[in-house]
Parts: sequence; C-alpha cells; structure tokens
Amino acid sequence: MRRKYGVADTTFSRIDMGAIAIKTITKEDPDAEIVRYTVPGIKDLPVAAKRLLDSGCDGVITLGWVGKSMLDKYSYLAASIGLITTQIITSKHVIDVTIHEDEAEDEEQLKNIAIDRVTKHSINLVKLIRDGKNSLTPFAGKGLRQGYGNAGPIED
Amino acid sequence: MRRKYGVADTTFSRIDMGAIAIKTITKEDPDAEIVRYTVPGIKDLPVAAKRLLDSGCDGVITLGWVGKSMLDKYSYLAASIGLITTQIITSKHVIDVTIHEDEAEDEEQLKNIAIDRVTKHSINLVKLIRDGKNSLTPFAGKGLRQGYGNAGPIED
Amino acid sequence: MRRKYGVADTTFSRIDMGAIAIKTITKEDPDAEIVRYTVPGIKDLPVAAKRLLDSGCDGVITLGWVGKSMLDKYSYLAASIGLITTQIITSKHVIDVTIHEDEAEDEEQLKNIAIDRVTKHSINLVKLIRDGKNSLTPFAGKGLRQGYGNAGPIED
Amino acid sequence: MRRKYGVADTTFSRIDMGAIAIKTITKEDPDAEIVRYTVPGIKDLPVAAKRLLDSGCDGVITLGWVGKSMLDKYSYLAASIGLITTQIITSKHVIDVTIHEDEAEDEEQLKNIAIDRVTKHSINLVKLIRDGKNSLTPFAGKGLRQGYGNAGPIED
Amino acid sequence: MRRKYGVADTTFSRIDMGAIAIKTITKEDPDAEIVRYTVPGIKDLPVAAKRLLDSGCDGVITLGWVGKSMLDKYSYLAASIGLITTQIITSKHVIDVTIHEDEAEDEEQLKNIAIDRVTKHSINLVKLIRDGKNSLTPFAGKGLRQGYGNAGPIED
Repeated sequence: MRRKYGVADTTFSRIDMGAIAIKTITKEDPDAEIVRYTVPGIKDLPVAAKRLLDSGCDGVITLGWVGKSMLDKYSYLAASIGLITTQIITSKHVIDVTIHEDEAEDEEQLKNIAIDRVTKHSINLVKLIRDGKNSLTPFAGKGLRQGYGNAGPIED
Repeated sequence: MRRKYGVADTTFSRIDMGAIAIKTITKEDPDAEIVRYTVPGIKDLPVAAKRLLDSGCDGVITLGWVGKSMLDKYSYLAASIGLITTQIITSKHVIDVTIHEDEAEDEEQLKNIAIDRVTKHSINLVKLIRDGKNSLTPFAGKGLRQGYGNAGPIED
Repeated sequence: MRRKYGVADTTFSRIDMGAIAIKTITKEDPDAEIVRYTVPGIKDLPVAAKRLLDSGCDGVITLGWVGKSMLDKYSYLAASIGLITTQIITSKHVIDVTIHEDEAEDEEQLKNIAIDRVTKHSINLVKLIRDGKNSLTPFAGKGLRQGYGNAGPIED
Repeated sequence: MRRKYGVADTTFSRIDMGAIAIKTITKEDPDAEIVRYTVPGIKDLPVAAKRLLDSGCDGVITLGWVGKSMLDKYSYLAASIGLITTQIITSKHVIDVTIHEDEAEDEEQLKNIAIDRVTKHSINLVKLIRDGKNSLTPFAGKGLRQGYGNAGPIED
Repeated sequence: MRRKYGVADTTFSRIDMGAIAIKTITKEDPDAEIVRYTVPGIKDLPVAAKRLLDSGCDGVITLGWVGKSMLDKYSYLAASIGLITTQIITSKHVIDVTIHEDEAEDEEQLKNIAIDRVTKHSINLVKLIRDGKNSLTPFAGKGLRQGYGNAGPIED
C-alpha cells in the first residue's frame, strides 16, 4: 500500500527544512504521498502532527527551530512533551527534529547541522514506516548522530 | 461557512491584548464570529481555550502575560503544556501568545512587542483556520518573528 | 439554578485559607452550596478538585501552600500541571491559589498576601461560574494582581 | 464495607517503608485489606499505583526514595506528574511519600524522617478513604508537617 | 501461558544494550517470546513501548542513552514523562533503563554501568511480569542499585 507521510514545519525556522524533508522522503520512497503543514512555531507542531495523523498519515516528521533563551528552552520542553503525548495517543511515530540556535557558532555551521539532521531523520522515518520495527536494528548501539558525525559504538 | 474564533485573555495582563486580537481578526476575516473569554491569569487559559473549542470555535488565540520570577516561569511552563494538551485532545489550533515582563527594558517597548506579537499571531490564526495547512507554507523557513523584526532566512 | 462551589485546602498550609474562601464565596453568592475538601498537601489538590467536580461542583478553588526549597518548587510545577489537566478533562474552572513561603519577609506579610489572594480569587471564581466568560472582561488588560496591589494597565 | 489499601514501595529505598505503612494502616483500620506492590524505583510507582487501583484498591500510598543528583530530581518530577495523572484519571487518592537522600545529614536522621513521614501519611490515607473529604478539615491551615515537627499555624 | 516481552532500543546508544537485554531475558525466562523495536533516540522510546504493548507484549524494557548537555536532560525529562504516561494508560510495566554519558569518567566504566544496569533491570522485568507484584518484595528497602554496587539498607 502507498504510504502517506506528514511534514510539519514552521515560519520561525531560518532554514526551509520542510523542503529538505520532502526531497529526502521522495527520494527514499518515490511512491509515497507527502502532506506538508506549516505553523508559526514549535508549540504549534504537536497539533499539526496530530491533525496530519488524523487525516491518515502513517507517520510524521516535525521540524522545529528553537531560540537561545531559557524561555525558548521551556517552550522546547513543553513542545517535546506534547509531541510524545501525540505519539502515545495515536500509536504512530512523530520523528522530532529540532535545531537550537546556540548549537553552532555561525550560520553556515547551523545550516550544515540542519541539512544533515533533517536528511538523516527523514530516512529514519521512511525506514520505520515502510520497513518496520527492525529496520534500524542493524544500527542499534552504533552511536549514530544526526547533525554531527556519528559517535560510533564503544568498542570492547 | 462562517468561521468562529475564540479570544482568551487575562486580567493579569497590563495591556488589553484581547481588543487588539479582536480588531485584527475582524479586519482579516470580516464575516467571522468572535467569542471572547477573560480569565484571571495564564494558568486559567487552557480551560478557557478548551471551553471555547467545546462551544464550537474553530480555533483560539490565547493572550498570556508572565511576570519575572522563576515561579512565573514555572507557571508559564505548566500553562504551555496545558495549551498543547488542549490542542492534541481537540485536534484544533490554539495559538499561544505570551508576553514576558522581562522581555523589554521599559513599558513602551513592552507595549510595542505586545501589539506586534498579537497582531501577527491573530493573522496567523485566521490563515490557518480559513486557508488551511499550506497557508503559511510560503513563509516556511523565512525566520519570521512576532514581537520583533524578522530574523530572516539563512542565505546560501 | 443554585450554584455549587468546591473549596480544596491543605493541612500543610499555615493559614486557614479554606475558611477565607468559604466566607468570601458565601458573601458573594449567598444561595450557593459550598463543599470543602481538605488534603495533606499541594500534590493532593488535583485529585481533590477532580473529585469535587465529579460530585457536581460547577467550579473549584484550590488553596496551596509551598515551601522554600527547589524540591518544593518541583512539587509546585507537578501540581500546577495536574490542576490544569483536571480542568482540560472536565472543561470546568479550577482557580489555583498558591502561597509561597518565600514570597514575604515575615509571617504578618505572608498572612496579608494570603488573605488578599484568596479573597480576590474567590470572587473571580464566583464571577466566572455565575456570570460567565465575559464577567471579567471589563478588567482585561488592567494589570490586576492577587496578593499584592494591582500593577495597573500600561498607559499610552 | 471493608476497605482495601494499596502500598507501593521500591527496592531502591534504603529503608523498608512498606512495612511501616502496612503496620500503621493495620493499626488504624484493623479490618482493612492491604495489598503490597514492590517495584525497582520511583519511576515505576505510577503504574504500580494504577494497577493497584485497577484491582479494586480504594486508595494507595506510594513510598519513593530519591538520590541526590539533578537527574534524580528530574526523575522525581516525572514520577510526581505521573502519580498526579494517575489520580486524576481514576479519581482516587494516591498519597505520595518521598524521601530525598539529601534531606538529612546522617543515616539515623534520614531513618527518623522516613518513619515519621510514612506513619503520618499512612494515617492521612486511612482518614481520607474511611472518613472522607472532611476528615482532615480540623487540621486545615494548621501547618502540619510529615518527616519533621509541625510548623504550626501563623497566629494573629 | 507463554510471556511476551518488548525490548526497545536506540541507534543513538553507543552500546548494544538491546542484545544484553535479550540475552538476559532469554536466560531468565527461556520460554518467552521477545520482540525488539529499534528507534533513533530516547524521545522515540515512548511510542515504541506503546506499539509493543499494543501488539500484545506483557511488559517492555526501554534502553535509552542521554548526552551531556542541558538540552539532553530536558529530552530525558520529556521522555521519562512519556514512558510513565504510557504505563498509566496501558496499566503495564515499562522498565526505563537510561545511561547518561556523564555518569562515568571513561568509556570502559560507562560500558560496565550499562551492562550491569541492563542486566539487573531485565531480571526485574521478568520477575514483575512472570511472578507478579510481590516478586521483588523480599528486596524492598534493601537499597538495590543498577549500574553501581548496592547501597544497602540503613541498619538500625
């Protein structure tokens, strides 16, 4: 059956992460239907994900962008709890990609982090939805990272 | 069909943000019905939003005002979680506008932030309710800000 | 129809705030039925409110007292989230009055804060339950405070 | 009708608080049925309480023990939210007794705190379940403490 | 009846904790069916646990790995709340094993902590699922630790 993916992004973000996600999902699963939903900021992402799942999406990727202040981090915490609650209620995956403005020292580095993280997690979403609960098992414990190079496994 | 918007505000706020929201929504969507609900403070906003949605509103904007202390910020966190839970349960948008007293150095600046943030988010609410999930997509990744000037997108 | 109010208080509190709430509600709405529920501490208030609402109360006021330590503040956060969840589930108001031991420099000041806050919020509860969602709208944006003097609105 | 109490404790605790609770409840309500449930640590207590309530307990006392680090405190916060959610969903009391390792300067003091707190809260549970919502009202605002001597009421 | 256990692990982890859990559960309960579910990171564990329980697992062990930054700790808090909510909704155990990168001074120590913690909690899960609510009662208050040596009970 043809899969249906949701992509939820924001106008707060300084990078068009939605476009990166759509491009990656399309490449990974060319037959897929993709539905995009754009909201103002991270605190609007849980309901966007919920509405996408309500409308028949098999899974969703959310693309959040978070400022540097303590209040931004509290909003991040509230949004994270909401995204997890959405998943528990629906029993469906919502892969949560978040970029924090204080992760990088300049805009170029921030852009590279965002591209890497969105791309890798878009692939993760396709694998989980299309190939199921053991699709990522070959990489269990391998220290994979999104946005940075992999940490790798701790060797014996 | 005629849209119905909820506006939830507080007596704690030092600016009549409800009036700004009603004026903006009326201008953006002249046919709309608008229902106002005033409560004491931010921790009362989630149930106000829930009751407005229960009574048939298509979407709600909440207008919170938060003090400077750590306890105020904890209340902000609890209220934010509650507003997100309300949206997940109802699958409807509640745009959460919050002004923090420590955002600005004087009252005039605080007022300008409030006016800008309420106006922009009232327009966001109308767009999402009336025009749907892709109404804001042209602005995805554009670094829009409410209360301040836009950050803008990170250019290549 | 005769209104029914719930008053939930604690044995942890150092002031009999329940008595103040009952006296105020009785004065404001003489026909009302008032049901009191006393629990050990703030983390027991959400279930007390839930049970009062289950038994037919139209609204509840909870009267919490919080110590000075970081752990007390975490308990405050957990209780606040619980009180908001209770309201979302029931779609009824639970006005949350909390006194923090570190709000004042001596016991007399603390007592004055408690009396003022409980009295004002008891009146808020009556207004919301009896007179509805626009009963407080004349005071929207007026910078009202409970426990302290009003901050007042920011003037043009 | 014969009452049924749940006692949920942990293997993480360094004191057998379950035994103290059972002894106290038995003394206060000799006809009661008591069901014990032992889990590894505090994050397992909410589901233990939920399962005890599912199996017919009228109320539950949980007996948590928390380490000194910031992560332990985050776990305490998550567990507290869970215990409150359990109560809201079931509309039944779960009295939450927690001992923090950094509450005392030595083991003997910690033991005294634990004995006092468990004993007093076990009595609170019996009173609330057997005698109802006004059983503790004579002590409302009296500044009762569990684990320490009472703070007492603020006198006029 | 043959028991069914869920094992949820991550690709973020630097140690293959899923393999340790499966080996331990198999040894403790040779007849058991074990279902593995691998996700990217800790914020995906609650829905993995929920889906495992939906598909008939009697209980689940989740195996999280958490970085050193404050944001990692916020994610830990959100995930912990989600795992507890999952348990409350399903009334089933989800034993939450978490390794924090800052728990140890070098990789070897971190590996020893992980092996010890996963092994002991896998045994805890089998005991709770197979032998029920009093299977751990002989160890109540004994100061058991996972990842470190036991603290032991406070003696009289």
